[in-house]
Amino acid sequence: MTLDDAQALDAADHLAACRGHFQLPPDIVYLDGNSLGALPVATAGRVAELIERQWGKDLIASWNKHGWIEAPQRIAAKLAPLIGAKPNEVLVADSTSINLFKLLAAAIAARPGRNTILSETGNFPTDLYIAEGLVGLCPNIRLKTVEADTIEAAIDADTAVLMLTQVDYGSGRRHDLAALTGAAHRAGALILWDLSHSAGAIEVDLNDADCDLAVGCGYKYLNGGPGAPAFLFIAEALQPTLATPLSGWMGHADPFAFEPNYRPRDGIARFLSGTPSIIALTSLDAGLDSFVGTTMTAIEAKSRALSQAFIDQVETRCSGEVALASPRDPVTRGSHVSFAHPNGYAVIQALIARGVIGDFRAPDLMRFGFAPLYNGFEDVWRAADTLADILATRAWDKECFHARGQVT
Amino acid sequence: MTLDDAQALDAADHLAACRGHFQLPPDIVYLDGNSLGALPVATAGRVAELIERQWGKDLIASWNKHGWIEAPQRIAAKLAPLIGAKPNEVLVADSTSINLFKLLAAAIAARPGRNTILSETGNFPTDLYIAEGLVGLCPNIRLKTVEADTIEAAIDADTAVLMLTQVDYGSGRRHDLAALTGAAHRAGALILWDLSHSAGAIEVDLNDADCDLAVGCGYKYLNGGPGAPAFLFIAEALQPTLATPLSGWMGHADPFAFEPNYRPRDGIARFLSGTPSIIALTSLDAGLDSFVGTTMTAIEAKSRALSQAFIDQVETRCSGEVALASPRDPVTRGSHVSFAHPNGYAVIQALIARGVIGDFRAPDLMRFGFAPLYNGFEDVWRAADTLADILATRAWDKECFHARGQVT
Repeated sequence: MTLDDAQALDAADHLAACRGHFQLPPDIVYLDGNSLGALPVATAGRVAELIERQWGKDLIASWNKHGWIEAPQRIAAKLAPLIGAKPNEVLVADSTSINLFKLLAAAIAARPGRNTILSETGNFPTDLYIAEGLVGLCPNIRLKTVEADTIEAAIDADTAVLMLTQVDYGSGRRHDLAALTGAAHRAGALILWDLSHSAGAIEVDLNDADCDLAVGCGYKYLNGGPGAPAFLFIAEALQPTLATPLSGWMGHADPFAFEPNYRPRDGIARFLSGTPSIIALTSLDAGLDSFVGTTMTAIEAKSRALSQAFIDQVETRCSGEVALASPRDPVTRGSHVSFAHPNGYAVIQALIARGVIGDFRAPDLMRFGFAPLYNGFEDVWRAADTLADILATRAWDKECFHARGQVT
Repeated sequence: MTLDDAQALDAADHLAACRGHFQLPPDIVYLDGNSLGALPVATAGRVAELIERQWGKDLIASWNKHGWIEAPQRIAAKLAPLIGAKPNEVLVADSTSINLFKLLAAAIAARPGRNTILSETGNFPTDLYIAEGLVGLCPNIRLKTVEADTIEAAIDADTAVLMLTQVDYGSGRRHDLAALTGAAHRAGALILWDLSHSAGAIEVDLNDADCDLAVGCGYKYLNGGPGAPAFLFIAEALQPTLATPLSGWMGHADPFAFEPNYRPRDGIARFLSGTPSIIALTSLDAGLDSFVGTTMTAIEAKSRALSQAFIDQVETRCSGEVALASPRDPVTRGSHVSFAHPNGYAVIQALIARGVIGDFRAPDLMRFGFAPLYNGFEDVWRAADTLADILATRAWDKECFHARGQVT
């Protein structure tokens, strides 16, 4: 692929116009939308309107007048079609970690006699840390982790819930949502998916796969802003039977009656806890509006084309220097690609110094995320070209690129 | 007090200039800062700078370059002097409800052999709901609530933690922080204070009273914006011994090492959980900057003067129509005043229609909050004058004022 080829692919791309909805610096190639999504052009204005006209002018009356009170459900309804859920099956609330805690505890309670949370040894650490926290509170529960290829075999009669991340944060490996959900169900367990690296980048159909529970992140491919509120999904049929352990007033059937005892709301809103940040919700709302007029089918097709083009370019131009650490088959890959290099940290720093923004994950992974709404084939070409030059010239081998300081 | 008297008091008020730091609509008297604080003039610009220049321009690098990663501690350090805490004893995180859950669970674990959470029957409902949620998870724990005047007598050898709200959301009654903390300690229990209706309005000295734990709200007197992040306090000496059950990656000793097991950070930052909203934190940061150059001693003195002037005016001008539902002695009162009226809901609606913004709390309380940074004596006079007229003319007795719809 030449630069001309890349530009021709961008010219033919039906999603190319979406890039105009984002305010990207002109001089960089941003391949870290899997860590922090880019800024939508509309966000600053939406947040300013919220702050100055709603909060500033209408003050407390805004909870009704501007629908703040229903914002977690209203914004969730925009997210629902991106993950194959019904609008009333999704809630925007808290952080991914907090939502995991709620759903793990609810799942354990919904499977009396079963005491195991089963997960994958390489699951995203916070998912395991949260399960550890729950186990610390409830000594009858245990967390069991197994390698990816033994998950199905490890589900047994004590498994209350199988907790997995669909797309691995390191390698980008994608689990088969329907197959593992089916395996959990056949053993009588519930399934809980973390969609942090899936939602907004690949096609996810929670209903079609008969999923029970899911959580995910608002600040990656959903472009909700740094630390944006997260989401949770509960299949409609399960909702009446599940209870949140973080039973705050916003999940009460009548929060402003100030009843002395907790009485959960109907539906998914019972999984609200304290008062949510309306400013943070508004920024996420603007991020979700970037998906209007697109389909996840088109977005996933572009994701595969971008990541495949990047793999092809890097393997052609950096042969022998890097090793693909992501699945080669796009069906089993998410929207980011990792290459291993013994000096991966320094190489990433050298790339960043030249305006190609990827990130590093220990011990040796260089990660490149492709956000189909704003990345294009020219980004792929430029990133591979810059990487090839840095590797060919050993430009990464400078003291400044070896000094650790990066936190994200 | 005449309008001239009120204006003379405002002219002599050293804090009067602080009102200029807030963007209040010119035509209203806002007495609901105890529910949603007013908008600081600086907030919109601070948030716009964060969104457009930090997120938009520096993207993922902002976590280091703009200090996002340390924001929860940096902003907490601004809050610490407002509540008599050391900077390393406060953390801004999550919601008040979530923080209560963390601290209740940590307190129970820190008092082995003791299984009771003791609280007050009239505590703010979400505090009790959260305790209920914890009890639901851990059947060995129990929640015991007693009336306010029997709290001290109810603390016993099974009390792990006494959880109280310092200033009651309804009546404004203020507990004696030092006396009840001492009573808990004498019985070997920990104390956990909810400062939601205290912080930023009255003088609180957690260290002087030897308090163990506290939580509070960022969106009331701290002016952090709707649903702003909350805070938690842990006395320095206790920190190494306390563990959070919501053990997310931001509280890990080395979050970016992606270790498989949870290992808490040193200090209070272990009580972080998931990734916090940087936009919401920035708005709270701007809210806290409104306190620069003030002292809580001066703020509490003005709070007492305002609430006392309001009580005096209302009792003089509305005699026989309303009953004071707040303590008469300002030492035992927070910064809001409640009056009972059989048609309190309709009266509040009639006040709002005339631009005097208070709120209603069931069954019959009309609440008026005085935020010393932006409320003045002219506000007091206008509110009392409008209330007197509405009561004298029965202007509240219109159908439109009786229809329930208010949610806050």
